[in-house]
Amino acid sequence: MKLATLKDGTRDGRLIVVKRDNSAYALATNVALTLQAALDDWDTKEPLLRALAAQLEAGAVQSRPLDQTALHAPLPRAYEWIDGSAYINHVMLVRKARNAEPPATLKTDPLVYQGGSGDFLAPTADIPLADEAWGLDFESEVCVILGDTPQGTKAADAGKHVKLLMLANDVSLRNLIPDELAKGFGFFQSKPATAFSPFAVTPDEVGPAWREGRIHLRLRSVLNGVQVGDTDAGPEMHFSFFELIQHLCKTRGYTAGTILGSGTVSNVDRARGISCLAEQRMIETIEEGKPKTPFMKPGDTIDIEMMGEDGQSVFGRISQKVVKPS
Amino acid sequence: MKLATLKDGTRDGRLIVVKRDNSAYALATNVALTLQAALDDWDTKEPLLRALAAQLEAGAVQSRPLDQTALHAPLPRAYEWIDGSAYINHVMLVRKARNAEPPATLKTDPLVYQGGSGDFLAPTADIPLADEAWGLDFESEVCVILGDTPQGTKAADAGKHVKLLMLANDVSLRNLIPDELAKGFGFFQSKPATAFSPFAVTPDEVGPAWREGRIHLRLRSVLNGVQVGDTDAGPEMHFSFFELIQHLCKTRGYTAGTILGSGTVSNVDRARGISCLAEQRMIETIEEGKPKTPFMKPGDTIDIEMMGEDGQSVFGRISQKVVKPS
Repeated sequence: MKLATLKDGTRDGRLIVVKRDNSAYALATNVALTLQAALDDWDTKEPLLRALAAQLEAGAVQSRPLDQTALHAPLPRAYEWIDGSAYINHVMLVRKARNAEPPATLKTDPLVYQGGSGDFLAPTADIPLADEAWGLDFESEVCVILGDTPQGTKAADAGKHVKLLMLANDVSLRNLIPDELAKGFGFFQSKPATAFSPFAVTPDEVGPAWREGRIHLRLRSVLNGVQVGDTDAGPEMHFSFFELIQHLCKTRGYTAGTILGSGTVSNVDRARGISCLAEQRMIETIEEGKPKTPFMKPGDTIDIEMMGEDGQSVFGRISQKVVKPS
Repeated sequence: MKLATLKDGTRDGRLIVVKRDNSAYALATNVALTLQAALDDWDTKEPLLRALAAQLEAGAVQSRPLDQTALHAPLPRAYEWIDGSAYINHVMLVRKARNAEPPATLKTDPLVYQGGSGDFLAPTADIPLADEAWGLDFESEVCVILGDTPQGTKAADAGKHVKLLMLANDVSLRNLIPDELAKGFGFFQSKPATAFSPFAVTPDEVGPAWREGRIHLRLRSVLNGVQVGDTDAGPEMHFSFFELIQHLCKTRGYTAGTILGSGTVSNVDRARGISCLAEQRMIETIEEGKPKTPFMKPGDTIDIEMMGEDGQSVFGRISQKVVKPS
């Protein structure tokens, strides 16, 4: 089942169910007004939404053509957005890029940070950039939306709390990161609003590609119309979503609708390309002595998409342009 | 005007208006079902809520006796909880306690971290502590609830975005902090669920004590029945809430209902006492060579309250007990 949120001028939009081939949708507001409302009462709402999705596939319910630019982020605002950094190759490259050592516990203790969750970007929203010197970067990621997840949840039990899968562009301001992290409190100004994919889908939607808490599919990143990354989100995710959930739940619990990200998808094989410019710049530094790829500037575009085993775009396409705020 | 949220078995509770002397309340659900709903449409709802509050004071509306244990946090879950560390004395003492240098930009660049906001503790909820070795501490703080606050907001314009004031107990697990901060991504497991005061009040409720983005009143902390702190939240807040808001808004905007905390209220004058145990332990280390006050353990209690110039408890009392989770 594919869910999305139609912009309607309200803060949280209107819940829709999307046809598997992404061509059409049906309003789901008879079941739940918003995706958050559906997640708040998931055990009741999920079967009703699945029934509606089946009717939509069968042509048994009124549908309308889908325009992805009419969509908000599936959750236009969420109660929490927590982002991991689970691909070791990314951590190694990015820390090297800012002359920082990877943490000693790199492979045993997951890295996560608490992100801002009150004001997300729609999948096709412009990325406002007030100052080019901030070093705007995209980060192509996979993520999960949790149901209610209690304190003490272990990895072995985490699967049942994963309700939906989604993609993210975890927009980062690279040149603000070193000074901010030096203060010791983690990211803040260096992480502006995050964008999410048009659709949030139930794990069964990707079939066997969802296994052991990882999405075993390729994540495509296209910068200014040129494919720069086609990275595999599966095997190199060192900590699975289930292990990340266990880490989160050590000292508190989570409300339905909490979003958890994987961190930038990154592969050791350089032929797969990159899912953020910081990696590209570090590879250039290693190979050529200095970075040559600039960070993003107004007018630049980034597209992020993941194809299923059937060749269909699973989550729709994040397609954004950097703009100077008016 | 004093607002609060009555527990009713739902996630977000029911909005009530509280009498100035804290003795009684009136249901406000005819105006807005929840505090978040009121904040989402504040310009329309605020005058209606104020009219109801005036009727309540005049005895012109049905009221019921108020039991603070029946209250949830004013926002049982919020879209963002951002906590500053604006009292320089606290930063100096706590960093000294963990042998960390204060940041070089201590007085020019505010410290803030993004906290978990999906699952807050009610003002009289037990604090679950799974492991005493984590070093549970309270942190008595003042905070503000923002309305919609756009990117680029400057301190001079920030006042109009502050809709409500509140207290917080920013529960911290001190012994998890050093290893977590060493990883470079800020606090996560070391910050379990935060508790908030029974009432969130409009700034006029404290009269001239709200000025220049600071609350000029004493914050009382009572540990196991003994007053350990009576700190002034006003003059030593180095960065005002307005300056903190400017800091937050550099690279993104905020949705209505975002909560911003001051950090632990702390005074240079040691006669004022402390608003967290880490400070007490550092003072002991300085004066006696080692800390003697233990962190909190199951059975310990903490009460946090602020009296107005009229001697009335402005926000009601945070009153919590530490318990071993069942």
